Parts: sequence; structure tokens; C-alpha cells
Amino acid sequence: MALTFQIEARSGGARVGRLMTPHGEVETPVFMPVGTQATVKGIGQEALEELGAQLLLANTYHLMLRPGHETVARLGGLHRFMAWERALLTDSGGYQVFSLAERRKVTEEGVEFRSHLDGALHFLSPEKAMEVQQALGADVIMALDECTEYPAGPERARESLELTLRWGARCREVSNQQSAIGSQRRQNRGPSTARSFVPQGGTRSRSARDDKQKEQALTEQAFTEQALFGIVQGGMHTELRRESAERTVAMGFDGYAIGGLSVGEPRELTREMVAATLPHLPAERPRYLMGVGTPEEIVEFAAQGVDMMDCVLPTRAGRHGLLYTSEGRINIKLARFAEDGGPPDPNCGCRVCARYSRAYLRHLYVAGEALAGVLNTLHNLAYYLDTMRAVRHAIKLGNLAEFLSGYRSRNLSSPLAVPGEDPA
Amino acid sequence: MALTFQIEARSGGARVGRLMTPHGEVETPVFMPVGTQATVKGIGQEALEELGAQLLLANTYHLMLRPGHETVARLGGLHRFMAWERALLTDSGGYQVFSLAERRKVTEEGVEFRSHLDGALHFLSPEKAMEVQQALGADVIMALDECTEYPAGPERARESLELTLRWGARCREVSNQQSAIGSQRRQNRGPSTARSFVPQGGTRSRSARDDKQKEQALTEQAFTEQALFGIVQGGMHTELRRESAERTVAMGFDGYAIGGLSVGEPRELTREMVAATLPHLPAERPRYLMGVGTPEEIVEFAAQGVDMMDCVLPTRAGRHGLLYTSEGRINIKLARFAEDGGPPDPNCGCRVCARYSRAYLRHLYVAGEALAGVLNTLHNLAYYLDTMRAVRHAIKLGNLAEFLSGYRSRNLSSPLAVPGEDPA
Repeated sequence: MALTFQIEARSGGARVGRLMTPHGEVETPVFMPVGTQATVKGIGQEALEELGAQLLLANTYHLMLRPGHETVARLGGLHRFMAWERALLTDSGGYQVFSLAERRKVTEEGVEFRSHLDGALHFLSPEKAMEVQQALGADVIMALDECTEYPAGPERARESLELTLRWGARCREVSNQQSAIGSQRRQNRGPSTARSFVPQGGTRSRSARDDKQKEQALTEQAFTEQALFGIVQGGMHTELRRESAERTVAMGFDGYAIGGLSVGEPRELTREMVAATLPHLPAERPRYLMGVGTPEEIVEFAAQGVDMMDCVLPTRAGRHGLLYTSEGRINIKLARFAEDGGPPDPNCGCRVCARYSRAYLRHLYVAGEALAGVLNTLHNLAYYLDTMRAVRHAIKLGNLAEFLSGYRSRNLSSPLAVPGEDPA
Repeated sequence: MALTFQIEARSGGARVGRLMTPHGEVETPVFMPVGTQATVKGIGQEALEELGAQLLLANTYHLMLRPGHETVARLGGLHRFMAWERALLTDSGGYQVFSLAERRKVTEEGVEFRSHLDGALHFLSPEKAMEVQQALGADVIMALDECTEYPAGPERARESLELTLRWGARCREVSNQQSAIGSQRRQNRGPSTARSFVPQGGTRSRSARDDKQKEQALTEQAFTEQALFGIVQGGMHTELRRESAERTVAMGFDGYAIGGLSVGEPRELTREMVAATLPHLPAERPRYLMGVGTPEEIVEFAAQGVDMMDCVLPTRAGRHGLLYTSEGRINIKLARFAEDGGPPDPNCGCRVCARYSRAYLRHLYVAGEALAGVLNTLHNLAYYLDTMRAVRHAIKLGNLAEFLSGYRSRNLSSPLAVPGEDPA
């Protein structure tokens, strides 16, 4: 296994764990801020460190198109490129191909699509998704899946599930072969060689041969250190979810993701599908619920035993002037905050709440100032990361049930308790 | 005098000084980052502190329109509103009225104009400019002037100069009267009363009477602690510049600004006008050159004896991907930086240069990421503030001439040595 995962405490289905990655340990349950284009929008990496983020997600689709995975590889991989020394996870690119790209054509081999940026033709196969993610060099990479659309009847969901399983097997195969090659080469050359090829400084003086050597070394390094996660599909059908989970687990991945949720279904159905899937994932491996969710949801799913989650909500909402607080969600642009000298969240210790007022944040937002998005995003990330910290603490102390009931009553009392959804 | 100014070292016409403001000391020559709407675009106040900024400029015109100076006063003044405990300077609003506002009508009384935001009718007189700036409560405030347009013949420049002098006298008069009243009231009540009225936290529990008391107290505090600077005009006519300087000085301000420059004239003319004005400003008072300039210019003008400067160049250029470096100005969006793993400026120790590569900054810019503007601006401000720090150091060491010749040769060797101008 490329990834060691130790479970340190349990409370019901929930657990506190420790993911050991080549770029440091990650305490779980963990919320991963989304750094789509190798940046969490508006936030410097030093601020993310200060917030205590241990693991970021970056999007393979975006980075493959711009600046290009070969460019990132030549610059020493994604960690070095974005100057982030802690852990990284990349998705397979599949989700964005299905949601952003134009003129998609799905075949057994993979997906042909046109870039949303310039219309250029691209092809993403399981092997290509692996190649790109290996060039990027994140600590955790994802198998290519087909994200089943919602709604999808049982036949369509089954078809999609089977394709995802075949693609997953091809990704697993690439990873196995390369692990073997990498391991063999490392034995021949000693373990430290690969790392020493990471380029330092500018590129002007490098010859083509140097470049080739470096790329090969970097690729080998990636092969042998990247953990590969499989993805469970099955639409909104509990029986298919179970089957997908069991057959994915049978392939032996380093961790397992629940995909195909948060695609427009009612949240009750999301919860049902998660509950139908989790029991069929091995307890000793990390479980990753993709693209979820609100603060309430990340708490609930962590309580059910999910170890990893990611979502654009805290960052996207921040850019739109929505703040998650201990008193519910607030819309900072409302006139009632114009002369409110109090902190955004009176119970938050983040650098934004410690220094700035609601009145100032409202002014920045209304005046169209860039600092509005920066400060709102910083606070929202602090709120999400603090929430997960509190969940881990409650699991360790064994009072998760108490924490949950307190958290539910506090947040559900707000008229905006479930952000991003219609009141209905 | 509301402002103590101590000169600590001299080298030719240049001097190192210390401005003592109610919000801390400011070492001069100083470059003031521009915080137009009570924010230096994209940069948090903690980052400005880290950069060593001691004095920021904010724009009265913008703040008067949004969020409104009464709102800022009710929230405890501009320092508290924007959570900046160091020194602040506000301009009079005149420059923006002449450059941004719509349908201006200038009379002896003042300027009628329509807001560029919503077309609402406003009137700015010398008395109103004082009232607004006193409500904002910056440490240094500016008399209302008419910024003479370029080009302006001697008659027009004379007319504008005379209006500026009359407006300056009215500002001086407001300030004198209020100083007297404030000083009288302070004697009656003891000096600590005014400060104790600064509102803490939210505004919901305050009664109308409380509000009134607080506002009055804040206003008095401002009256007695704000330094007022007069502004020299005179177009591009050396004789008028001299006359304007002498007659402004005769009114007895806390400091003197050179206005009406950087309005489209050739830079040679700017230098000529500064040189024609400086000898007529008292050596013992701070001299402020408004709206200037490039890194080369701030060094040159500091060497001639200018103590304070402000300019949007480092911040605005940063948002457009232009970086000031020790090797000249670079345009980060150029393809040649796409795989340049070196720091933006190899001789800079700022947090951007210490962490990120040119390749990453280029990616952020090309990808339209908010972090591009943030990081570019941070570096440019660091470059400007470091440049001024180096100038102060050279003056103290008595080797300013050497520093200047080194600085000139280094920067002029770059094809982009004079940013913001045509090569001609």
C-alpha cells in the first residue's frame, strides 16, 4: 500500500484516523479545500498553512488544459509548482469532463471532449488520467470513473457502474505495473535517486537530455509513492451501490471514494446512498465522499464514518458574500450589517473574525473589492476546518453524540441552515 | 502643530525624518500604499503590517460616497472601520471630483458634482471636505484644492492657483476654529473623555442620544489631533509654483503638498516643477509629492527632499501582471516565464519571492485567478517599501549619491525601465 492509514479512535461508525502521505500526515475526518487551478481562489498557501489545512484537492481536468501536466512535471510536480509542501489529492478529471467540457463522446476506450477554454480536442482514458495525475504527482490520485448523471434509471446506472468498474481495473493495472517497475528500478539505484532530480530554480540552462532524465525520475517517484483510490458509482440505487462497492473493493485500492452524489439529487437521497455504501467499504481503508457538502453535512457524514470530504461551498459562497458562522449562514451584503461593528462570527477565532467587522466586510463586498472574497473565503475555510477539528475532538473524547445534537440544534435554528438549497 | 516632524539625518537636499502621529511614528521619506476604498486592493491589513507599511492613503471622495463618512464616524472612524491601527492620510476628495465625478460645476463656494456610482448630486466645499475628513479621522488630512488640468496657460493656472489659495484659507480657518473649541472643551472636561467614547462592537443597543454624544466626542478628538496639509498648485509655470508655495506657507499648515502633477505632463516637466517648488517649502515641515511615481521617480524625488509620496502604480500594475524587480519591470504573462522556476525577483526577500516561482505567478495570471493580483501586488508593495527603506538607509549612512548612481544604472539598463510611459 502506498498509503498508511491508522485509526486512532472510534465513536459509533465515526473514526479519527491518520493518513501518512509522502507530504506529511493528515488527520481524518478531513475537509479538503478545493484548489481547482492549483490555487484555492484568492488564498495564499501561507494562509492555508495558518488555517491548518493538511490536504488540498486540485483538479486534473483544469491543470491538464492549463498550464498542462507536462509543464507542471518539468517544474518539479504540483507540490513544487504551487509551493505547497503538505499533502495533495487530484481527481481523475472525469467529473469536469462530464460537467464542463464540450461535445463529449464516451466510448469503452475513454472520453473524447473539447476544452471549455479553447475548444481543442482532447481524449481522457483511464491510462491518460493516470499519466496526467502521475505527472502532477499528488499524494492521492483517483481512478477514472463515469459520474452517473441524475436521474438515471437502474439500467443506465448499471451500464455506467460497469464502465466505471472496467475503467477502475485499467487504472489499477497501470498503477500495479508501474509500482513494480519503479520498485525494481529503485532497488537497482537506491531509493534517494529519484528525489534528487527535482529541478531547482530556472529552466534556461537545462538541456533536452536533462529534461528527459528529470521527467523520467519524477515519473518513477510518482509511480511508487502515489496512493490510488477507486470510486463507487451506482446512481441512486442502493443495491447497485452495494454491488459497486464490493466489486471495487475486490480490486484492492488504497482507499475508496463514493462518487456520483451531489449531482442534483435531494439531500435525503444523498444521505441514503452514503448509508447504503459505507458498510460495504473496508473499515481499515480511508473512505472519501466526493463533492460534499454544507457544514451540517460534513459533520453528519463524518459521524457516519466518512474520512475525507471536499466541496467548493466554503470558497464559492465566500466569493458571493455568504459566511458560515456558529449562528447560521449570513449574507454579508444585507443592509442590516452596514453599521454592525461586531465580528463576522463572535465564536470564531480566525484572523478575519479577530480583526475585521461585519460592517467592513459588507463595505468591501458592496464596493466590489477583491479583499471581500479573500476575507470571506478565509473565514469560511476556518469555519469548515474548525468544524472538522471539533468533530475529531468529539470522537476522541467519545462524546460525538452530544456534539452532534448540539451542532444540529444550533444550526437548524437558523433560517439559512441548509445553504445552497431551496427552503423546500 | 498637530504633527511633530523631526529630521534625523540629511544628505544633500534629502532628509530622513520622523512623523509623530496619534497612530504611531512614520519614518520618512515614506511611500504610502493607496487604500482607495479603505482597502489596498486585495491585500489584508495584516499583510500591510508585515510589509512594514506605516502610513496608508485613503480617498475621501470614494469613502464619502460609499459607505459614507457618517457611517465610518459612527463605527469609530476610519482606523477602527478598516482595522488599521497605524497612521492614515486622507486626500480632500478634490482630485477624484475632477477626475471621476460627472457633470462638475466649479464655483467660488465649491464643486457641485454627480457621483460616478449612482449619479446622485453632491457638493464639495472646503468646509465640507474638512467635515468629511474629520468624520473619517485620518491622522493627516488635506485642504481642498483645484487640481489644475494639463495643459493650462498662465492665466488659467493663475486663476486655479488663486482659487486653491482661497479654498486653502477656508480649510485652515475651519481647522483653527475647531482646534480652539476642542482645546477649550478638553480643558473643561479633561483630556481622556473624548477617547472613551469610541464605540466598541455592535451598534444595535445604542440609543440616538448615545450616538450623538459619541459623534460629537469623535469629532472633537479629530479636530484636535488631525494635521492639515496645504497644497501647492501653479500648473507647469515655475513662477506660479513659487508664488503658490510662498502664499500657502504663509498660511501656516502642518505640512505642504505639491499637487497638480502626474496629470499627463511629460515626466521632465514633473521634475522641473518639483525642483521649482521644493526650495520654497519650509525645511522643518513635511513635504508631500502627490500621485508620484515609478520606483526610479520615488528615489529621485526623495533625494531632492520630498518626504512623502503615494501612487497607485505598484498596486494597479500588480493587478495587470507587471512586477517591479531589481532587474527591471517584468510582464509576468509573457510565455517565456511559463517554465521559469525562479523567484519573481532574485534579490527580493518578500514572502512572494521567498515562496513562489515566476511560472506559478504566470499561471495564476493567465488562468485569471484572484491570487495573481494579490501576490503581484504584495511583491510590488514590498519592492516600493524596500526601495524607500534603502533610500533612508543611504541618507543615514551619508552615501545617497552612491546609492542613486547604482540605482539608476541598474534600472535604466532594463528596456522597461520607465514603466507606465511610452518608450519615447
